[in-house]
Amino acid sequence: MISLAELQRRIDAGELSPGAAVAQSLEAIGVQDKTIGAFVCRADHLNAASAGPLRGIAVGIKDIMDTAEFPTEMGSPIYRGYQPRRDAAVVMMLKQAGATIVGKTTTTAFASVDPTPTLNPHNHGHTPGGSSSGSAAAVAAGMIPLALGTQTGGSVIRPASFCGVAAIKPSYRLLPTVGVKCYSWTLDTVGLFAAGVDDVARGLSAMAGRPELLLPPSIPTPRIGVVTQDFAGAPDASGGEALRIATKAAERAGALVWVLDLPEIIAEAWQVHSVIQEFEAHQALAWEYRENYDAMAPLLRAKLDESRGLTPADHDAAIGVASRARHALAKVFEGVDVLLTLSAPGAAPEGLGSTGDARYNRLWTLMGVPCVNVPALTAKGGLPVGVQVIARYGADAAALAAARFVEQALERK
Amino acid sequence: MISLAELQRRIDAGELSPGAAVAQSLEAIGVQDKTIGAFVCRADHLNAASAGPLRGIAVGIKDIMDTAEFPTEMGSPIYRGYQPRRDAAVVMMLKQAGATIVGKTTTTAFASVDPTPTLNPHNHGHTPGGSSSGSAAAVAAGMIPLALGTQTGGSVIRPASFCGVAAIKPSYRLLPTVGVKCYSWTLDTVGLFAAGVDDVARGLSAMAGRPELLLPPSIPTPRIGVVTQDFAGAPDASGGEALRIATKAAERAGALVWVLDLPEIIAEAWQVHSVIQEFEAHQALAWEYRENYDAMAPLLRAKLDESRGLTPADHDAAIGVASRARHALAKVFEGVDVLLTLSAPGAAPEGLGSTGDARYNRLWTLMGVPCVNVPALTAKGGLPVGVQVIARYGADAAALAAARFVEQALERK
Repeated sequence: MISLAELQRRIDAGELSPGAAVAQSLEAIGVQDKTIGAFVCRADHLNAASAGPLRGIAVGIKDIMDTAEFPTEMGSPIYRGYQPRRDAAVVMMLKQAGATIVGKTTTTAFASVDPTPTLNPHNHGHTPGGSSSGSAAAVAAGMIPLALGTQTGGSVIRPASFCGVAAIKPSYRLLPTVGVKCYSWTLDTVGLFAAGVDDVARGLSAMAGRPELLLPPSIPTPRIGVVTQDFAGAPDASGGEALRIATKAAERAGALVWVLDLPEIIAEAWQVHSVIQEFEAHQALAWEYRENYDAMAPLLRAKLDESRGLTPADHDAAIGVASRARHALAKVFEGVDVLLTLSAPGAAPEGLGSTGDARYNRLWTLMGVPCVNVPALTAKGGLPVGVQVIARYGADAAALAAARFVEQALERK
Repeated sequence: MISLAELQRRIDAGELSPGAAVAQSLEAIGVQDKTIGAFVCRADHLNAASAGPLRGIAVGIKDIMDTAEFPTEMGSPIYRGYQPRRDAAVVMMLKQAGATIVGKTTTTAFASVDPTPTLNPHNHGHTPGGSSSGSAAAVAAGMIPLALGTQTGGSVIRPASFCGVAAIKPSYRLLPTVGVKCYSWTLDTVGLFAAGVDDVARGLSAMAGRPELLLPPSIPTPRIGVVTQDFAGAPDASGGEALRIATKAAERAGALVWVLDLPEIIAEAWQVHSVIQEFEAHQALAWEYRENYDAMAPLLRAKLDESRGLTPADHDAAIGVASRARHALAKVFEGVDVLLTLSAPGAAPEGLGSTGDARYNRLWTLMGVPCVNVPALTAKGGLPVGVQVIARYGADAAALAAARFVEQALERK
């Protein structure tokens, strides 16, 4: 993989020009993407900016984000050839930080669950996960050092886990969703993929103009609450093993680690996530679903067919549960710095028929808290499995620092 | 003005066909709009739906809302001829309820402060207010029974007050903003204009699929806290007089009415509204401001120039103040059903150089609470002045019912 931090170091030192750095990515894409299929469209030639913390950094943008210079097809024939007039806010943030947008990455239709043709770079017989399939795979395959995705259920953390890359789903609205196709306004969150935790922190800090998100020179030792999310069912063997290994590594590295039970209201919030998601999707995708029904992706359409009966009262009740659960979770964080839990049930499932299961991600998206994926082990078939580090709402710097602590602990293992 | 309730009654009774009802609006627009200039574009001929609670209701849509069948120009040359592929979620809600979209109404550029050429139907030498100028004026002039606008500072309640129409800015996210041009995601709220409170309630109830928003057969007598918003400065004579008249009328009609002081944190929230609004606008309008600087409307551009120095820390602090103020306001509502306050400093200012002042509206937009404008008096020059009735977050039905109480009390006066 291409390390963003290492590229920055070489560019700062004058060892590499921004243009040459971007050209390396374009070349890697040219070689790799014929097989992986992570890009929907891309530029053949680009001028790199000469200033900004992300100069020389080639970035892939999930194809539900508006771009003035590339079509934005939403993974759906309904938007074939659609050319937005403007850039999404997060795309402008990247440009203002000096980054170079190299192309658009594959997305399941409207960031839902119908798989894309993208392959998992670690094992071509397996899914890279979804819905941010192309962004996770492009970083994992060493094509680009940074990519943007979005998470409504588990669409950043799960593909990051399946593809063995670091990723952050930041606190709700730390990054704006203006110009990003909406599925659920209560849930949709823009996230970043990169090679390691430091790389992710550098990308997010530069985009948001928040220097406090950079890793501190010395990483503090966190108090870690381990959470198994039993309300979501049992994990696969590889998922459970990843959590055990990460827990042990953190303990050995000196962290205070203990298993934590979450209050009942939090399990209730996990339950109502889909009520909020699908009720809002019926409004957000009303034009697509009602006026382009036949062209809708089949799995998404079936989900919307099934959830047609949801009422405003159902949504109000679910929002009430979520609000009480957020308060309860804030209290949980009075006793720990971060939570450590599963990023996915296990390694990427075989085949391209499914993008995997978001059941260990949904709750945290609804809570709006920052989540960072850290690769923890390589399972059978060369497939990576990650764990996620979660901090309280707004404590994105703490989530990143603790994720770096776990990452280092796993490296030392 | 055209009463939506009366149209519904006649259509239900078979006295009027939906097609004939829509044709009446098209005819009124044809006669009136040459002078008023409320529409940016409109259909010449339309087929009315034959089913749905809003069949036969002609609706005007503020031109920052995406429409698949009309261009969406955002009040700016930057979007000249821009044709969205889809309808905004609220436009689909109207269509699903049977309404007929007759055209797009004028908006200040990106719903900010640069005036449109629209005239106030009550006095052509005065502004209709902004930013939802065309929607307020089109309803006031009797062209259409229903129109959509948006409020980020005071862009629904203020033009409604200046134009003498009823309007609601519902609770934050009661109506989705998907497909509506964003200025500030924390503030932007879709609202409705109609002839009277009952008409507004019928429109909102049908759009949102919430029968509980219809007025009850017998309007309960509310406990009313009168709020003068001294932190926002003193009103004009006509604004102060409107509040006094509405207060007296409500008292005479049997309401418990007393003057209420708001906690200090609420005045602080009023102060920080602009920090949130402009910080977010820099992200939401980054493409327009940075890549189309010369084409930006001058007053908006100057606002953005002035606020360039706002930092993420400023925004975080302002969000913190707003959150504490929302808690304090919830406590205020433990003692009263609704608040009654100024909708605007006074009657619409003379000329078209300014759309008036949003200083009595900002706080409530930031609090996310439902606000209903009720016309209260006619000032010098035939200009209307309104008052606003405000309920706690989520109590839109209570806000509408109490607004109807005040409206009836003023009719009896």
